Amino acid sequence: MSLKLVVVGGGSSYTPEIIEGIIRRHETFPVSEIVLVDIEMGKKKLEVVGNLALRMIEKSAKPIQLSWTLNQKEALENADFVSTQIRVGGLEARAKDERIPLSHGFIGQETNGAGGIFKAFRTIPVLMELAQNVHTICPEAWIINFTNPAGIVTEALLKHSPHKKIIGVCNIPYNMRHSTAEILNSSPQEVQIEFVGMNHFVFGKKVLVEGIDRTEEILKIICHDDFGYSPANIVNLGWTKTFIESLKMLPNPYHQYYFQTKEVLEKDINAFKEHGTRAETVQRLEESLLNLYSDPNLRDKPKELEKRGGAFYSDVACSLMESIYNNRGDIQTVNTFNQGAIPDLPPDAVIEVNSVITREGPKPLAIGVLPPAIKGIIHYMKAFEEQVIRAALSGDYHEAYIALVMNPLVSDEKMAKVLLDELLDAHKAFLPQFQ
Amino acid sequence: MSLKLVVVGGGSSYTPEIIEGIIRRHETFPVSEIVLVDIEMGKKKLEVVGNLALRMIEKSAKPIQLSWTLNQKEALENADFVSTQIRVGGLEARAKDERIPLSHGFIGQETNGAGGIFKAFRTIPVLMELAQNVHTICPEAWIINFTNPAGIVTEALLKHSPHKKIIGVCNIPYNMRHSTAEILNSSPQEVQIEFVGMNHFVFGKKVLVEGIDRTEEILKIICHDDFGYSPANIVNLGWTKTFIESLKMLPNPYHQYYFQTKEVLEKDINAFKEHGTRAETVQRLEESLLNLYSDPNLRDKPKELEKRGGAFYSDVACSLMESIYNNRGDIQTVNTFNQGAIPDLPPDAVIEVNSVITREGPKPLAIGVLPPAIKGIIHYMKAFEEQVIRAALSGDYHEAYIALVMNPLVSDEKMAKVLLDELLDAHKAFLPQFQ
Amino acid sequence: MSLKLVVVGGGSSYTPEIIEGIIRRHETFPVSEIVLVDIEMGKKKLEVVGNLALRMIEKSAKPIQLSWTLNQKEALENADFVSTQIRVGGLEARAKDERIPLSHGFIGQETNGAGGIFKAFRTIPVLMELAQNVHTICPEAWIINFTNPAGIVTEALLKHSPHKKIIGVCNIPYNMRHSTAEILNSSPQEVQIEFVGMNHFVFGKKVLVEGIDRTEEILKIICHDDFGYSPANIVNLGWTKTFIESLKMLPNPYHQYYFQTKEVLEKDINAFKEHGTRAETVQRLEESLLNLYSDPNLRDKPKELEKRGGAFYSDVACSLMESIYNNRGDIQTVNTFNQGAIPDLPPDAVIEVNSVITREGPKPLAIGVLPPAIKGIIHYMKAFEEQVIRAALSGDYHEAYIALVMNPLVSDEKMAKVLLDELLDAHKAFLPQFQ
Amino acid sequence: MSLKLVVVGGGSSYTPEIIEGIIRRHETFPVSEIVLVDIEMGKKKLEVVGNLALRMIEKSAKPIQLSWTLNQKEALENADFVSTQIRVGGLEARAKDERIPLSHGFIGQETNGAGGIFKAFRTIPVLMELAQNVHTICPEAWIINFTNPAGIVTEALLKHSPHKKIIGVCNIPYNMRHSTAEILNSSPQEVQIEFVGMNHFVFGKKVLVEGIDRTEEILKIICHDDFGYSPANIVNLGWTKTFIESLKMLPNPYHQYYFQTKEVLEKDINAFKEHGTRAETVQRLEESLLNLYSDPNLRDKPKELEKRGGAFYSDVACSLMESIYNNRGDIQTVNTFNQGAIPDLPPDAVIEVNSVITREGPKPLAIGVLPPAIKGIIHYMKAFEEQVIRAALSGDYHEAYIALVMNPLVSDEKMAKVLLDELLDAHKAFLPQFQ
Repeated sequence: MSLKLVVVGGGSSYTPEIIEGIIRRHETFPVSEIVLVDIEMGKKKLEVVGNLALRMIEKSAKPIQLSWTLNQKEALENADFVSTQIRVGGLEARAKDERIPLSHGFIGQETNGAGGIFKAFRTIPVLMELAQNVHTICPEAWIINFTNPAGIVTEALLKHSPHKKIIGVCNIPYNMRHSTAEILNSSPQEVQIEFVGMNHFVFGKKVLVEGIDRTEEILKIICHDDFGYSPANIVNLGWTKTFIESLKMLPNPYHQYYFQTKEVLEKDINAFKEHGTRAETVQRLEESLLNLYSDPNLRDKPKELEKRGGAFYSDVACSLMESIYNNRGDIQTVNTFNQGAIPDLPPDAVIEVNSVITREGPKPLAIGVLPPAIKGIIHYMKAFEEQVIRAALSGDYHEAYIALVMNPLVSDEKMAKVLLDELLDAHKAFLPQFQ
Repeated sequence: MSLKLVVVGGGSSYTPEIIEGIIRRHETFPVSEIVLVDIEMGKKKLEVVGNLALRMIEKSAKPIQLSWTLNQKEALENADFVSTQIRVGGLEARAKDERIPLSHGFIGQETNGAGGIFKAFRTIPVLMELAQNVHTICPEAWIINFTNPAGIVTEALLKHSPHKKIIGVCNIPYNMRHSTAEILNSSPQEVQIEFVGMNHFVFGKKVLVEGIDRTEEILKIICHDDFGYSPANIVNLGWTKTFIESLKMLPNPYHQYYFQTKEVLEKDINAFKEHGTRAETVQRLEESLLNLYSDPNLRDKPKELEKRGGAFYSDVACSLMESIYNNRGDIQTVNTFNQGAIPDLPPDAVIEVNSVITREGPKPLAIGVLPPAIKGIIHYMKAFEEQVIRAALSGDYHEAYIALVMNPLVSDEKMAKVLLDELLDAHKAFLPQFQ
Repeated sequence: MSLKLVVVGGGSSYTPEIIEGIIRRHETFPVSEIVLVDIEMGKKKLEVVGNLALRMIEKSAKPIQLSWTLNQKEALENADFVSTQIRVGGLEARAKDERIPLSHGFIGQETNGAGGIFKAFRTIPVLMELAQNVHTICPEAWIINFTNPAGIVTEALLKHSPHKKIIGVCNIPYNMRHSTAEILNSSPQEVQIEFVGMNHFVFGKKVLVEGIDRTEEILKIICHDDFGYSPANIVNLGWTKTFIESLKMLPNPYHQYYFQTKEVLEKDINAFKEHGTRAETVQRLEESLLNLYSDPNLRDKPKELEKRGGAFYSDVACSLMESIYNNRGDIQTVNTFNQGAIPDLPPDAVIEVNSVITREGPKPLAIGVLPPAIKGIIHYMKAFEEQVIRAALSGDYHEAYIALVMNPLVSDEKMAKVLLDELLDAHKAFLPQFQ
Repeated sequence: MSLKLVVVGGGSSYTPEIIEGIIRRHETFPVSEIVLVDIEMGKKKLEVVGNLALRMIEKSAKPIQLSWTLNQKEALENADFVSTQIRVGGLEARAKDERIPLSHGFIGQETNGAGGIFKAFRTIPVLMELAQNVHTICPEAWIINFTNPAGIVTEALLKHSPHKKIIGVCNIPYNMRHSTAEILNSSPQEVQIEFVGMNHFVFGKKVLVEGIDRTEEILKIICHDDFGYSPANIVNLGWTKTFIESLKMLPNPYHQYYFQTKEVLEKDINAFKEHGTRAETVQRLEESLLNLYSDPNLRDKPKELEKRGGAFYSDVACSLMESIYNNRGDIQTVNTFNQGAIPDLPPDAVIEVNSVITREGPKPLAIGVLPPAIKGIIHYMKAFEEQVIRAALSGDYHEAYIALVMNPLVSDEKMAKVLLDELLDAHKAFLPQFQ
């Protein structure tokens, strides 16, 4: 029996991660065919990455066929899983998402604030088309969406595309669980965190180790002044004791943008002045990675990839696909329809939620009403996400403006327009819906 | 390490079931102490049952201490699990719950209609007191409530008692799963039914065998005119093809009272005229069971118990306790707080729902909005249940009247009063709150 | 300035009511043109009624032009108000709605139970077409919908037609207010009833006379055994003291079908056996009315019309149009979008609700959460109404079946099919969507 | 018949406003007795104001008895209306609410941000006691709450005090209606604004002049760069065209704090550096007013009072009392229980909403679901308000911290603590619940 995986954005430097994950899980998740798809602009990278992937598979001696193509529709034929890891406009676009807001004194970041909004604007139409193609060509296939802002993108696709087998993934919950395990000297398998919220805005409401509640313990530890548990690519400024004691939940690293805005902004502006944008750093990293990948003797995922920031993405995605394939019934944290898990939010909102993973997809565990401390901000951010989707799909200028002005990292009615106009202009090649 | 189970209503003829279940699971659920508790009125039965239980344990050679007592508070000391299987007023009261409505031309049944309402009225205050005692004496213990109407009683306790570790169980979902497995030639372990609704009013929305949707197939089978899948104690009249095809869900046997009211009523009235109430039949069965139990050579649960109707109750309860004890994370169907699993209903409504069973109790799987076909009636029945609880706790005559008149099996504004007055009078010894 | 009213179903024997109402209000609501529209089948009646209307206007000496036509689209040109009082299939169809259920032992009634469902099935498509025409031809016009089941029909049009200026009216709230005023020796102008619910299922939650709460007083009066406050066309069996004391609200006469089902059914079946259906009685009344109308000397609404049952319909509709026209801001009870007035129900459900009447239409007064006593049944009836609309628009057999089986006056899964099949067949000429 | 008004905080310099309002409405609202109540600290002001009030009444020759007292309970006897206009801690406290946040670079304002939170913390317990007294002494009396933050305070009292006849009022909606009327050359009586939101965070969704929608017209006018419609005490920076065109609603002047934060802050900090706090300016104004009031020849409300900022407060309150007294049924904008008017918010949230004013109090007009553009921020601000109430009543440090950190004008997790600690210390004399 064949089992086919299509990787959209297959030319990404992350691809060796997913290849390694597939190889390692071959016993229980016997992928027989992988197709890497990319666009004309990424053709050269696709070849370098594709050839490394071939060498990795060859070394593994697993019976996996691998090929690459620029023809998405052909690639999708008979696919069982489609993973997406695209970056519309490439790192140049990301650089603009960072530079333009920063240059006006606003957070300039890949998935938050004005930059995140524009990443959504560029990405949603492209993935809507993919979802349409999947629905037509391989309607039984699952789309595993890595592409950021993963929550917003997944909600847009689940609500507005005809394809309903779509799951969004992110490594933040994975990392929070792993770092919590490390802190508590447990294995990640024993740790469960009850998450509540949305992608990049998720809180850890409860920490259980083998079913025993150790939330208080971990909260005490993480609010020490000299401690942090952030993933590699997030500037970590720590949290005050009062914040953690009052919140009684684990924040995630992205919450720093919202609750430490001034400090983060200052730090980011300084870094920007010294080193340029993070996108530019990543670009340099990418180039050196691709250089490595080009080495015909390299037959493994290089260690250097881990610095890239998306570590464990592949673990998250491969585990998810493996569980679906085997109807495993384990609990993973994914982005899927709320369906009441948080009764305060619409049943068709996409949330990041612990779910039982079955052949029919994720079944979210009911969380109950939002904790009062975060009820307001969760509602606010969810309404903001809905607004981003509305604007991304309509290409309406005023809807886009509302998305900006109703984002807590913008909120300035005058500057919202300045940022909007500058970003619309900068990205116009990738925003056909706004023309 | 000790592990103590208290069985409230331990003199019930069902007790050998639970004893057998505990013995069989001793490896993974090493109960070290069982105390059977009952009230003065049930003293004699308690001794007979207790002695049989002792012989069963002796035969099993498991290191389980068993004793019995009329002192609930003493029994509760250091308890880890408390199971309830009481019948306030005994089978005499049940006979009245059946006879009085039937004699006026209404469904007279243990858990539905006027009879079910009065069972709730008698039971709730008694179990509220138990919950209060558990909360004071063994606050970490889980109450596993078997006592009918299990959904209503569990909601009353969870909402209004200080103790929150309470789970309601019923064998209907278990039986539906088992009979579905039989029909589909699968093992019950492979079958999942997505349930939606409340205890004794639950529908099977989807049937999955190893994660594959086989709902259509089972629906086609069960609507054959000559087919039924009811448990032993439910008169089975079958369902029409049109009903099942339109509903697109599995009804449960109790739905016959609501959607085949006239026929069931006719049959029940005839049976009542010929044989008296079901309670009286059960009473005779009980007596012969107790006779059997008294035989000092009997060291096993006798086969005859299966006719009694509650078969598999013990399996349901023991599996649940075993999973809690081991933080197993498997999925069982229990009565617990909704918490959004059905977003249409209040988060603190108790529903019968597939839940992941952990050391912290059940985590319901989100179901999503109610299917339109049953949305109205589920709301209606849930509001009715809330009304029963309101009346049971307040002892208010008018609240009780509203509970009756808003029950679809009563609904007659004149007869509701007749039934109410007659039942209040008949049960007055067990309804102190209404004096 | 012209002000044009189109009366759809203008051949109805009710038309003299509305003509009289228009004449009487000419000072404040100066209608300059009335067009009566009907269909081929009603041509003869239309002429008789049209000629009487002409004579009434002539006598009044008001400058109102009146004409009649079978061409709906032409009639609608430049209309400001469109009132609907149609009966698809005529009284013959109503006779079937009554006879078929009654002959199987079910309530057979114009707007409730199986008959009401089929009236909705026949009416909705016809009025959807009217709403479409209004939207195209006279998009600023208000449709005032008299046609029963008025709540269901209005919800269908408001939700599913492109025209949003639609208001449903019924004389039940008007009659309840008037009879309450009579009982309390006040004038109807001084009496306010806080209504809660839907058309023909509305309760009076509070009775205020000049702003003073006199609910308790009126409740005490109406539950006297020998008292009734029903409108002429509703059999009145009175309410028990216990029902009214427990409910603490005014029921409406149609509630007898739901809370006195057996008695009403018995009475109706006897009446049916003796006199045939109510439709047939009405048919005879209609004929004698039309005979009267034909008298060229008759220049007034004849007294006999009041027996017909729809008395005050015209008062209700004319008052409403007058208030809209003058942006009066008074409070009237109409069928319109809930918009939160009852937060338990969807914002786009149509309810019967006290509303401030403005040039922009009705603004409902917020009622707050449903009283617990009626919460369940209101939800149930609203879900039933949604189901009727779903079936009426889709023409789907299974949806129609669910509408019947989820109606509390049917609910029998076997008989629902018998009624459905027989009614579908009997009405097939008027149910194109079900072919 | 007597009609008694008690003015709590009667020593306020605003009192002549309300006295004038009462005198002017004597025909339709025949107040026969006024008692001014204040506390020891305000004794001297009370006498000055009381004597001016006496002279005003004397000049009017209306039969109104006026007295003043420090004994609240005595004053409340037989009261029909109780208006509140207190300032716990006086203008000194206000100065701290402004100075402390400003000195740390945050908005320092009477009713918004950290200052507003502390005004609520000081006020709620004092008015809870008043509500308790009213409930005991004059349970039929209406409390008309002027005291800011009026929405939060009213919600606290309505939800948590035993007294339910409480209405909050503010002059913002009044001013918006009046300035809109001026702009559109209409009279305020002809203008209706459909408000949506909460006190000091209310938007004007629709502007109707005699029932005709003129929203677009007014929106076009107000976004001219050189235009403003703010009340006297609000710095007006105008709104950009894009903001107004995208929002499609009227903002209120306080929205500047949220959508023009940086600019307002800069302006406020400069003003603070130059002139000290607004509280200090007001203090000087107050002193000169009291000087004027002391003049035994003054027998009218002096013109100078209008500069004070609360102009029209008395109009708002007197109109409201007059409408309640006469069961008038007109529409006024008040703070009252939502009851579904905005179905997105809890039925027991207090919102600022157009309501029909009756003898039984305000009946809100249903608004329907929140416009998407403001849905998120309204939810956020309402959850924030609930948090303020929770903290104010519990005196819990962590709850108070969450109130600050979840306010969009604070939101900084480190500085929230700094502000909290400094303000708790500065106000400790008036925050017994936090000791």
